[in-house]
Amino acid sequence: MNAPLAEHLLPEIHQRETPAALIDALKTRFAERCSTALVVREQHGRDESSFAAPPPAAVIFAENTADVADAVKLASEYGVPVIPFGVGSSLEGHLLAVQGGISIDVSRMNQVLHINAEDLTVTVQPGVTRKQLNEEIKSTGLFFPIDPGADATLGGMSATRASGTNAVRYGTMRENVLALEVVTASGEVIRTGTRAKKSSAGYDLTRLLVGSEGTLGVITEVTVKLYPLPEAISAAICSFPSIEAAVRTTIETIQLGVPIARVELIDANTVRMVNAHSKLGLREEPMLLMEFHGSPAGVKEQAELVQELASGHGGQAFEWASTPEERTRLWTARHNAYFAAIQSKPGCRAISTDTCVPISRLADCLLESVAEADASGIPYFLVGHVGDGNFHFGYLIDPAKPEERETAEALNHKLVARALALEGTCTGEHGVGLHKMDFLVTETGAGAVAMMRSIKRALDPKNIMNPGKIFTL
Amino acid sequence: MNAPLAEHLLPEIHQRETPAALIDALKTRFAERCSTALVVREQHGRDESSFAAPPPAAVIFAENTADVADAVKLASEYGVPVIPFGVGSSLEGHLLAVQGGISIDVSRMNQVLHINAEDLTVTVQPGVTRKQLNEEIKSTGLFFPIDPGADATLGGMSATRASGTNAVRYGTMRENVLALEVVTASGEVIRTGTRAKKSSAGYDLTRLLVGSEGTLGVITEVTVKLYPLPEAISAAICSFPSIEAAVRTTIETIQLGVPIARVELIDANTVRMVNAHSKLGLREEPMLLMEFHGSPAGVKEQAELVQELASGHGGQAFEWASTPEERTRLWTARHNAYFAAIQSKPGCRAISTDTCVPISRLADCLLESVAEADASGIPYFLVGHVGDGNFHFGYLIDPAKPEERETAEALNHKLVARALALEGTCTGEHGVGLHKMDFLVTETGAGAVAMMRSIKRALDPKNIMNPGKIFTL
Repeated sequence: MNAPLAEHLLPEIHQRETPAALIDALKTRFAERCSTALVVREQHGRDESSFAAPPPAAVIFAENTADVADAVKLASEYGVPVIPFGVGSSLEGHLLAVQGGISIDVSRMNQVLHINAEDLTVTVQPGVTRKQLNEEIKSTGLFFPIDPGADATLGGMSATRASGTNAVRYGTMRENVLALEVVTASGEVIRTGTRAKKSSAGYDLTRLLVGSEGTLGVITEVTVKLYPLPEAISAAICSFPSIEAAVRTTIETIQLGVPIARVELIDANTVRMVNAHSKLGLREEPMLLMEFHGSPAGVKEQAELVQELASGHGGQAFEWASTPEERTRLWTARHNAYFAAIQSKPGCRAISTDTCVPISRLADCLLESVAEADASGIPYFLVGHVGDGNFHFGYLIDPAKPEERETAEALNHKLVARALALEGTCTGEHGVGLHKMDFLVTETGAGAVAMMRSIKRALDPKNIMNPGKIFTL
Repeated sequence: MNAPLAEHLLPEIHQRETPAALIDALKTRFAERCSTALVVREQHGRDESSFAAPPPAAVIFAENTADVADAVKLASEYGVPVIPFGVGSSLEGHLLAVQGGISIDVSRMNQVLHINAEDLTVTVQPGVTRKQLNEEIKSTGLFFPIDPGADATLGGMSATRASGTNAVRYGTMRENVLALEVVTASGEVIRTGTRAKKSSAGYDLTRLLVGSEGTLGVITEVTVKLYPLPEAISAAICSFPSIEAAVRTTIETIQLGVPIARVELIDANTVRMVNAHSKLGLREEPMLLMEFHGSPAGVKEQAELVQELASGHGGQAFEWASTPEERTRLWTARHNAYFAAIQSKPGCRAISTDTCVPISRLADCLLESVAEADASGIPYFLVGHVGDGNFHFGYLIDPAKPEERETAEALNHKLVARALALEGTCTGEHGVGLHKMDFLVTETGAGAVAMMRSIKRALDPKNIMNPGKIFTL
């Protein structure tokens, strides 16, 4: 069901040979946990992006760190790429075997290893998903806040520096990963940190690996911060007469320093799609979904202040929820937006944008881009972690129609150029993958990308770790 | 006044030659801003550590990024080390020219370049100090929270990944630096990020440079986050019958998720020194200094909760301050502790420890180390950012008595070994410098240090950027 390869978007593809001797060695080492079945390989050769490439030559189902290390050592011996795979929820082509090689599936490495509730930390294997983690730590009274839309793995979330709706208060994977265990390009196992809350002990390898998209090593353990479940949680949705009104309310909320836990924008169009998909009766107007965490008094104080700000911009129809069930119902709209949108145009793929700008520039960035998208006639959804200045258009294209892809990419180009001019970034949380290499150079400059390449060459001299992502060598 | 070089502590010193031709070229480029006067060189060849080394061959007073770039290019041409210098407040020997070379003094690069109050960010030159920054942004209603004891520069604080008393709530330089401008080892100028609050655009060069102690580049601009001045601030000191009681109160406060802004420990001994130094009449018992930030109701709520926890551990004599003047008076004790201690033993130097452990391990780590220090008979002060699990012994040694240094270093070794066994770090905020290279290997493992070395070699092939710090090549 994937789109044909959009070659103008992808870097030059060199499918390296995977020697039969390597496959033999992998089969000897992993037996039935090394699969060369086409269906398995195809499943591991794609993700939620609109790209396609030939599948990997084999898939290894790793069950522990030693498995990963051995697979990498064998691949290194033959100079063959390795691509880590969690649940396949990348939006940017991270999982595609654009240079051939083998996929290392870590989804069976799904143990929660050490819950240190008294320190608010937990160490997990990379295949643990965020929902699984929260389920397994429920009895501790703690939670893990980072929530990209998908039920992604902690390994994948670390690799892409993911964030999501709670980041406005709790930060992203950048702020919440304390330490990693990593298999390097030579198959060595290293640890990048301790459980101390802060450290000045040498280069910050943790932060270097977080967001490196599998290009510097395979993550085999992740230690993250946890947070006490708030004493009180209150969620609200509020409709606005315009996107601008919703955005202005958000900007003022952030500038006043309100510790809002979530503030998400959904445009009218997307509310319509969600209503159709989830049989809801939400007002089909631009909407903010908000959540407040704290003591009962603190939550009340925050909510009153934001309500006042919203009223100043014509916000109305506040609907409040404080029980978990009511909150889940309100948040359904947000969490189903992607799938609702995809289903609104049968057979379509979404090309997602991911710009993030300083909060004061949010209205400028967003409103012009909405006008451009409307003028293009392409259907789209629009959701945003607007408290962080981050939002996503999902342009819904028919993969069989190159002109639709071109229109979508042209819109994205204009949006990124605008975001960069406003001192923002081309990607707030999805990563560069195959899709934003040119933008990365524009954003950070050739010198910074050259520095990244130098690091890559130094740590992966054979260029076998998920090669062809972020930049080509 | 510096101690003689403690050679057993320092790595092998290779004083590289500084060719006269380089000095000539620097004099041509910088005229009187290139000084070879001994007094200037000596001032730039030491810091607050107890180490000594021959001074740098010359000091360049840089006034802008182009100055730094040109100095680095010339140094690179001749393969001569460069050492960035701010105000000289390093505690770990970062500023010592252990391999010779030139010092680049950035203290004249002290402009606040862009205040973006509406985005809660500011961009400064590296020589801006934290107090200067807060003075210059006062009218915006915002503040910059990171406060190591010294009035350090933002460049130096970035380079060492500094933190201080507010880190328990606001994070460290790791969390608060958004972007850097850096002169690389080849003299090229790069930028490492944008003003967006989050980004997944490639390797996190910002976090790699933060904490790299001048070994990967010279920082020439720093963009940091700011915070709205809290609507209400309340500070308190509270005395405890024992260090353990104070520490247990802290642990419970953190575990309950109280968003306390500061929680600092001072032991009875140090209170005595401060009383003598600052003519205060504080109870000479272990003491916590606390600060609460928030809305008036929120602050009251936090303060009541912590007071209750403290009472459970025999905390008493709470003294509260809510005006800036009263708060300053209370905090005097904490901020003067270092100088009070130094002056309590004329001619002494302090050997500072900097371990940081997970909060649940704090009592174990601290109490045994106090017992060891007491048994050793060496005078010391003890202060701690205990909310982060980070604390500092300052062992007061007579630099003319090697046996005192040995005793202090032996205590530090035991303390670090204990902290590492408790899943902590040898340095929470001071950096590795010359002092903790062996500890770094023990803490992170040879593989991780090898990875750091690979990065260093790739980015600084001539090993001219503050060589001999963090590790030797």
